[in-house]
Amino acid sequence: MPDTIDTILSRRSIRKFTDYPVDDQSIRTILETGRWAPSGLNNQPWKFIVIKDRSTMEELATCTHYGDIIKSSPLLIAVYLDTTTMYNRTKDIQAIGASVQNMLLACCDLGLGAVWLGEILNNGNKVNLILNCPDTLELMAVLAIGRPAENGRQSTRKNLEEITYYESYGKQA
Amino acid sequence: MPDTIDTILSRRSIRKFTDYPVDDQSIRTILETGRWAPSGLNNQPWKFIVIKDRSTMEELATCTHYGDIIKSSPLLIAVYLDTTTMYNRTKDIQAIGASVQNMLLACCDLGLGAVWLGEILNNGNKVNLILNCPDTLELMAVLAIGRPAENGRQSTRKNLEEITYYESYGKQA
Repeated sequence: MPDTIDTILSRRSIRKFTDYPVDDQSIRTILETGRWAPSGLNNQPWKFIVIKDRSTMEELATCTHYGDIIKSSPLLIAVYLDTTTMYNRTKDIQAIGASVQNMLLACCDLGLGAVWLGEILNNGNKVNLILNCPDTLELMAVLAIGRPAENGRQSTRKNLEEITYYESYGKQA
Repeated sequence: MPDTIDTILSRRSIRKFTDYPVDDQSIRTILETGRWAPSGLNNQPWKFIVIKDRSTMEELATCTHYGDIIKSSPLLIAVYLDTTTMYNRTKDIQAIGASVQNMLLACCDLGLGAVWLGEILNNGNKVNLILNCPDTLELMAVLAIGRPAENGRQSTRKNLEEITYYESYGKQA
């Protein structure tokens, strides 16, 4: 199995991390992969905020039911949609998803674990206050990243036959 | 540079393809990587339609300014949001973006070229008619895939410093 495909198929969310910090070179590499995601008209609607400060993390932990994950992680990347550079909400949000996925895959490649936190979006306004973000930035995701202190849980997906059609809707191969 | 990161950073859109067909095993591998994308609550909101039929492609080519790309490609994958399984539009559309990115990266790994077509969404209803899709499926993207008949064009991205802040909005490293 070629390496990238193997990384994609074997990646699992990691929700517990060691205290060991993520080095700056790895952080930069992760951000580079997020930066190189494709986007409609190449408009690159993303902004990233890198968070290592423990007091900021304590505040962010109050914004989600998954605060323990945030408190356990040595690194967060908050991913924002910059609505001032948006051209098509659907396509821009897809691009954000591609950017996040790139960063998650890069973490695997670097021997790091990560989890994509979405429930925190319910308190996006509070996160914006904590991170001093203008209203034009809309929180899209928070990635918690660090050296894994657990194995990824088993996960499942729908069968390919349930989600794939051939030539037109409803037709199986 | 680890392989996955290298694939992410070096991937470029390919818009011209040879006539050589994409084999079924490769198609299945591409779909597997789409299937294994992460999604909020693991709800997997995607549906895929695999298209190789030339007359269907001719019809789809009339739905976009980029019809020549569609007509040149031996394989299309239409990616849909299944609104009947949606739980949060923003997060579900992000998940679709992650799924698409997985498939694009898998193509690179398989020696295939691909391009993510979004302009065709302007005629999503017409595409739905051609592919016999119910209104509950919303077109998200069409991927044109095949053996590359061109090198990827140079592409650019905003500098990391333009899109990244540290600890809070506006702060540089």
